[in-house]
Amino acid sequence: MTLPESTLRLGVPSGSMQQSTIELFARAGYKISVDGRSVFPRVDDEQISAVLFRSQEISRYVVDGIIDCGLCGYDWIVENGNQDDIVEILELTYSRATSLPARWVLAVPDESPIKTVKDFEGKIVATEIVNTVRRYFDKNSVKVNVEFSWGTTEIKARLLDGIVDLTETGSSIRANNLRVIDTILSSTIRFIANKKAWAIPWKREKMENVAMLLQGAIAARSKVGLKMNVPESKLSDVISFLPAEKSPTVSRLADTDWVAVEVILEDKQERELIPRLKRAGATGIITYPLNKVIP
Amino acid sequence: MTLPESTLRLGVPSGSMQQSTIELFARAGYKISVDGRSVFPRVDDEQISAVLFRSQEISRYVVDGIIDCGLCGYDWIVENGNQDDIVEILELTYSRATSLPARWVLAVPDESPIKTVKDFEGKIVATEIVNTVRRYFDKNSVKVNVEFSWGTTEIKARLLDGIVDLTETGSSIRANNLRVIDTILSSTIRFIANKKAWAIPWKREKMENVAMLLQGAIAARSKVGLKMNVPESKLSDVISFLPAEKSPTVSRLADTDWVAVEVILEDKQERELIPRLKRAGATGIITYPLNKVIP
Amino acid sequence: MTLPESTLRLGVPSGSMQQSTIELFARAGYKISVDGRSVFPRVDDEQISAVLFRSQEISRYVVDGIIDCGLCGYDWIVENGNQDDIVEILELTYSRATSLPARWVLAVPDESPIKTVKDFEGKIVATEIVNTVRRYFDKNSVKVNVEFSWGTTEIKARLLDGIVDLTETGSSIRANNLRVIDTILSSTIRFIANKKAWAIPWKREKMENVAMLLQGAIAARSKVGLKMNVPESKLSDVISFLPAEKSPTVSRLADTDWVAVEVILEDKQERELIPRLKRAGATGIITYPLNKVIP
Amino acid sequence: MTLPESTLRLGVPSGSMQQSTIELFARAGYKISVDGRSVFPRVDDEQISAVLFRSQEISRYVVDGIIDCGLCGYDWIVENGNQDDIVEILELTYSRATSLPARWVLAVPDESPIKTVKDFEGKIVATEIVNTVRRYFDKNSVKVNVEFSWGTTEIKARLLDGIVDLTETGSSIRANNLRVIDTILSSTIRFIANKKAWAIPWKREKMENVAMLLQGAIAARSKVGLKMNVPESKLSDVISFLPAEKSPTVSRLADTDWVAVEVILEDKQERELIPRLKRAGATGIITYPLNKVIP
Amino acid sequence: MTLPESTLRLGVPSGSMQQSTIELFARAGYKISVDGRSVFPRVDDEQISAVLFRSQEISRYVVDGIIDCGLCGYDWIVENGNQDDIVEILELTYSRATSLPARWVLAVPDESPIKTVKDFEGKIVATEIVNTVRRYFDKNSVKVNVEFSWGTTEIKARLLDGIVDLTETGSSIRANNLRVIDTILSSTIRFIANKKAWAIPWKREKMENVAMLLQGAIAARSKVGLKMNVPESKLSDVISFLPAEKSPTVSRLADTDWVAVEVILEDKQERELIPRLKRAGATGIITYPLNKVIP
Amino acid sequence: MTLPESTLRLGVPSGSMQQSTIELFARAGYKISVDGRSVFPRVDDEQISAVLFRSQEISRYVVDGIIDCGLCGYDWIVENGNQDDIVEILELTYSRATSLPARWVLAVPDESPIKTVKDFEGKIVATEIVNTVRRYFDKNSVKVNVEFSWGTTEIKARLLDGIVDLTETGSSIRANNLRVIDTILSSTIRFIANKKAWAIPWKREKMENVAMLLQGAIAARSKVGLKMNVPESKLSDVISFLPAEKSPTVSRLADTDWVAVEVILEDKQERELIPRLKRAGATGIITYPLNKVIP
Repeated sequence: MTLPESTLRLGVPSGSMQQSTIELFARAGYKISVDGRSVFPRVDDEQISAVLFRSQEISRYVVDGIIDCGLCGYDWIVENGNQDDIVEILELTYSRATSLPARWVLAVPDESPIKTVKDFEGKIVATEIVNTVRRYFDKNSVKVNVEFSWGTTEIKARLLDGIVDLTETGSSIRANNLRVIDTILSSTIRFIANKKAWAIPWKREKMENVAMLLQGAIAARSKVGLKMNVPESKLSDVISFLPAEKSPTVSRLADTDWVAVEVILEDKQERELIPRLKRAGATGIITYPLNKVIP
Repeated sequence: MTLPESTLRLGVPSGSMQQSTIELFARAGYKISVDGRSVFPRVDDEQISAVLFRSQEISRYVVDGIIDCGLCGYDWIVENGNQDDIVEILELTYSRATSLPARWVLAVPDESPIKTVKDFEGKIVATEIVNTVRRYFDKNSVKVNVEFSWGTTEIKARLLDGIVDLTETGSSIRANNLRVIDTILSSTIRFIANKKAWAIPWKREKMENVAMLLQGAIAARSKVGLKMNVPESKLSDVISFLPAEKSPTVSRLADTDWVAVEVILEDKQERELIPRLKRAGATGIITYPLNKVIP
Repeated sequence: MTLPESTLRLGVPSGSMQQSTIELFARAGYKISVDGRSVFPRVDDEQISAVLFRSQEISRYVVDGIIDCGLCGYDWIVENGNQDDIVEILELTYSRATSLPARWVLAVPDESPIKTVKDFEGKIVATEIVNTVRRYFDKNSVKVNVEFSWGTTEIKARLLDGIVDLTETGSSIRANNLRVIDTILSSTIRFIANKKAWAIPWKREKMENVAMLLQGAIAARSKVGLKMNVPESKLSDVISFLPAEKSPTVSRLADTDWVAVEVILEDKQERELIPRLKRAGATGIITYPLNKVIP
Repeated sequence: MTLPESTLRLGVPSGSMQQSTIELFARAGYKISVDGRSVFPRVDDEQISAVLFRSQEISRYVVDGIIDCGLCGYDWIVENGNQDDIVEILELTYSRATSLPARWVLAVPDESPIKTVKDFEGKIVATEIVNTVRRYFDKNSVKVNVEFSWGTTEIKARLLDGIVDLTETGSSIRANNLRVIDTILSSTIRFIANKKAWAIPWKREKMENVAMLLQGAIAARSKVGLKMNVPESKLSDVISFLPAEKSPTVSRLADTDWVAVEVILEDKQERELIPRLKRAGATGIITYPLNKVIP
Repeated sequence: MTLPESTLRLGVPSGSMQQSTIELFARAGYKISVDGRSVFPRVDDEQISAVLFRSQEISRYVVDGIIDCGLCGYDWIVENGNQDDIVEILELTYSRATSLPARWVLAVPDESPIKTVKDFEGKIVATEIVNTVRRYFDKNSVKVNVEFSWGTTEIKARLLDGIVDLTETGSSIRANNLRVIDTILSSTIRFIANKKAWAIPWKREKMENVAMLLQGAIAARSKVGLKMNVPESKLSDVISFLPAEKSPTVSRLADTDWVAVEVILEDKQERELIPRLKRAGATGIITYPLNKVIP
Repeated sequence: MTLPESTLRLGVPSGSMQQSTIELFARAGYKISVDGRSVFPRVDDEQISAVLFRSQEISRYVVDGIIDCGLCGYDWIVENGNQDDIVEILELTYSRATSLPARWVLAVPDESPIKTVKDFEGKIVATEIVNTVRRYFDKNSVKVNVEFSWGTTEIKARLLDGIVDLTETGSSIRANNLRVIDTILSSTIRFIANKKAWAIPWKREKMENVAMLLQGAIAARSKVGLKMNVPESKLSDVISFLPAEKSPTVSRLADTDWVAVEVILEDKQERELIPRLKRAGATGIITYPLNKVIP
């Protein structure tokens, strides 16, 4: 089985990103079903055909034209040297505080004498992104033996001289008693396209639609809808509490002097606002989950 | 422990259908709790008592009057010869493209010389639905030795002469390099009742209510609610995009020339419509999940 | 790592209550992330630091001031003798019929000659809440040897003379063929505070906010939002079916003689009401899930 | 893939007997490897090809000549009516007390008025071995409606009038509060052959060799080798303790008046004998595991 | 179900020791089968009935006479204050270097100012063995608030002032950056008896037999049998390498000037000896596993 | 933590080879314990310290001197270009027929027009062993774009032009409908040493001892010990059946004209020999498992 040219050929990252990518597409409105034995997931849209690749190789196959588009980390776009050969359609940013971009950091054991990048002269460093790290040391004019590391990289900081490894919250760095010398690269997920595919109008429109729905689904993940009833006399008070950039939907209730107010909020604002709204006279406050938010 | 006559005695299919049935009832509003050790799940409705049976035998026990109603596949109603002895309350259809009815197909190896049902004369065929397959060959006036097959039926197409096996998407047929000669039976899930129980008014009303709520929950599964704000001047444009059969709820916003439009959509329409609505001038588009939809 | 005094130090129960507590906080708006190796979960609120303790010891550490507040069962507050030394902020009641308070019952084998608490004179009883059971027998002026039981308490009713064990639905009591002599203690979950922490204004306000959001999330769990369109002429009929204590939100639809009615219902009422509303003339009935309900 | 006629085609029971059968063959000297996706296990003997079938159907396929031989329960040979159409090569008996033959028993609830087989006149009985049970009631001249039962048979004793179900130790009967009326059939595992295959000399010799090695492996499972050193003067005493039917191997130790005694024992005798042998003067007693014992 | 007085009533530790205890009894010759739902395992010896209790309570129930004998840690015999009220039949020592006795150690954070037991004056210490730790501090004339700890004790060294926790290799102590102040108690597993049961001759003999077989099975676990052929001329050389306390069994081979030498070795000696024996002229060296070794 | 120079620093392959390597060392006499959180397993020999590395990098770290020795596949020694920079102590060959060396094969889809290596001119090939495959095509003077493949390589034969992938039995090749063009490399496991470590006498002796014990354990895995009693008159007959290269140990039984014969056999010979030995007059035939065989 291969991927027909007449469809939008989409690369889905397998491995640790697979489940969250499939869930994101589901929220966006596309059901991707993976049959355990196949690398060709089924998509409930006849115009799209999908294939599972490791995140590390997706940008390479986008450039080769084996797939039209795909999701992968910016780090592996850089490591593969594909930045200039692809179209970046969308950067998948996350608004929650804990969803920081992943960082590749150059680290040494706490007790190491190494203090700056210059001290690596003549040393051995292990990493999964060999090309990127070599370019980094070249740029800094330091001669380092950069070796490819197969897993458990963090322990090699002690067995060799240092490592360049991925960290999100820094907790694995701390747990291994390592010290960060420098951040080599920050990375988020990107939705990228092959340049020729982007030039084909229907493929481009399809990719733009997918991007819009992905963005709407991501936005919805950290938001909630809030409804409440407010006496008309207190409406301006209540509205003054709401974040300025949000314009609430106000509708008059039938035959009363109450209005119904509806607004979309960040879920973090919600926990601050609810107590204040209640004190300001709002009643019947409810919040409900959202599937998509398109401003 | 047995099932009291004074309750609506409900047969819940155990095995592969158990989890999805319990989730469907949960969405319909009935919490069915299975204690690992018991075949009598607890239902949070004192008027209903439940028992777990294999889907294959539920229609038989409905006919016997051991249970008043139950859910099972149409295939086993036919195999047990119970079609005329039960009341079919509801066919559980699914609107998603991938939720096709299950089909029982007569299949042979790709390389078999058998081309039509007539070529089975004198052959051996394995199946789980022996009665149905015998009736099928009788109707076609072909003499075939039909044997009951305990599992892994698909492999027996090669060891014997052919099989009648269940397939949903046809993928297990293809994976085993089999060729379909005919479809014997298409099957969906049915909610069925014992005839005497159906004649008891309160039991019938109860079963109708359960059916209505099941149907509302199924309908909601493939739908979303959509809200947006539209300038009154563009309302007719926007509404023209919406599926004709849906009448949106339009309410005027307080002291503005905007209206709030709310509509229920198939989730597949949603992904087509959102880009068009946005271009037509809608703002603040949100979609949200539904529990039940009753038209 | 320890818990900084400058934060609200929250005790989260580990073990069987851990997952449901974390989910409840998530619904309330606080994301608690447990890293497998650490007893210090991360909270996405810089003013709160959390620690996992067994439910049994949380009230003790609240009294000691090692944590400012926490969730635990009322039973262990009593067993530890901490009732008068803590502030009870919130009793977490559940409105679903099956979520009964847990009861500690004094039980004997069905075949035991023991009929009343007086018959325990000189006997051996096993329990996990030794102090509470001793106080109980003292109060009844019966001399009993109360021993601490490490798990599988229910079987000890037969090996010794009786037990005091926890039961929710009574099913483990029945499954072990035991007979209940008396209920010693009923217990629900409590959100409790250290008295000194409660006296610090910002900590108290923070705890009250958390309590309000927890309460809103619990209330939402057994409720749904319902919307429907009703011809104005039938509005009073329809409203008469709705539970008296609920005042629905009624808004006039633009340029029609229909109104949109929206109401929050117990999910158990929903299954009774939907058939009646439909017959009374409501159309486009939908129900949708809620995150929080604050009256 | 099919099974070549030029090999000994062996049916291996899938399901609950699969793992123990494969382990038994491994002990006998044949390595059977099951690849998760295939029903054709690999055997490390080019003369044997294997296929996985459910134990229930193996005797039928042996009679049909689709396989030359196989292992299955005697119960299903009888249920399929194949007793006279196969060659029974070996009954796999087990010498351990707990490995009783499986029994199919006719059982009713403890509280049922039914006392003897005659009381079943006009009743409904559920079982998996419908043919056998029908023959049983015919033989007893009792008219009974015997229905095929799909799993959880034991609970049906209460919902219907009685069951015929499989029991090994009787514990599931007791756990369900059932009472045994009669034993319908006792069953052990049999190694059986197709009659034509048995008439082919090389196939018959191969099957006899397999049977001898299976038997040797089974015998070894409940036996141990025991060695000890004994002063010649006490040899006759020591030997008198050993089971009469065992003739120990006695060899003189070089240049001493001690002899080495070696004997094969049931593992249950071992635990009785060791204390007595030690007191009788034996030293350096060791026991060791066995792979095969062929007398 | 209870335990009949006419059998030897054996307490088997449930929890973390359960599996290894059952395996040890299996090696000793007693098959203990645990049915998932019952605390009464089946033993393949009619004279023995067994019950699962937590290791912590076994000594208490031995003293109470609810069981005749059982296996448990010495630590909980001490904690329960039962040392003088039971008969210790056997200390289960292990000869492998890594199977050290478990130690309960008093520990503080690395950074704590506490250096000696005296520095605990007025502090809070958490532990599971409250009685033992209170006695320890009393003996040292230090006033300490000793609190019962429910799990994750090691983390409490930081939240309180110190802990007394169990450690085998010290690795959890190091992993938590704790420092050991003192060892409170060393503990091995003991096979203990009720004093009255011990006075009944047949029960005592039974327990002694079980003890002998347990000991033989433990001894065999770290030993192997070794056989080799040696030219008679080199026999004395070869024997000189063997551990002095082992007397090998030497038997002359038929019609040759070679002897067969057989000896039981610690498995750790084996890896040192094999190279030396081979160089000294031994051939055909094999080693084999043992079930029991009784010297 | 690092590895002390004063010990023999051993690299243990993590991942798919980890469990089998640890079991092999256990059979050889070395207990390697992996604590879930650490890459430094504990070895019960103070002279050895171990570290877990991926098989792919072990040869590189042996060359670097970070470890003294290790086990890894020959394929990765070649891929890393380390053949001439290490000492190969032992090739771990397996005598069982099914334990073939792993082969890296160049494969294309069945339907591909490519027939020979020359047809790859200008094509794209995916593989995990990029260096080795590039050398292979260079040697064949074919220009090919060789790309590193992250997993699921077999599917890329269809998406690109061909692959070089690992296969043991060829079954994954067949399952993916691929055709083998050439075998690039055959690979077995090797025990290798750093050249400087090999020059240190005690390290070399230690490695040789480990190698001898590993070899003895591997040899024992496919062998069994066989004992039987034979009447002296039939001894030469019986011995004539035994494989010529095996010299049995014959010892005369005390005071009889029987001899005890003991021999070590391949387990595959066993199943052929036992029936013949029995017919030739041997009795009391037993076979038993072996731990080590050193010829």
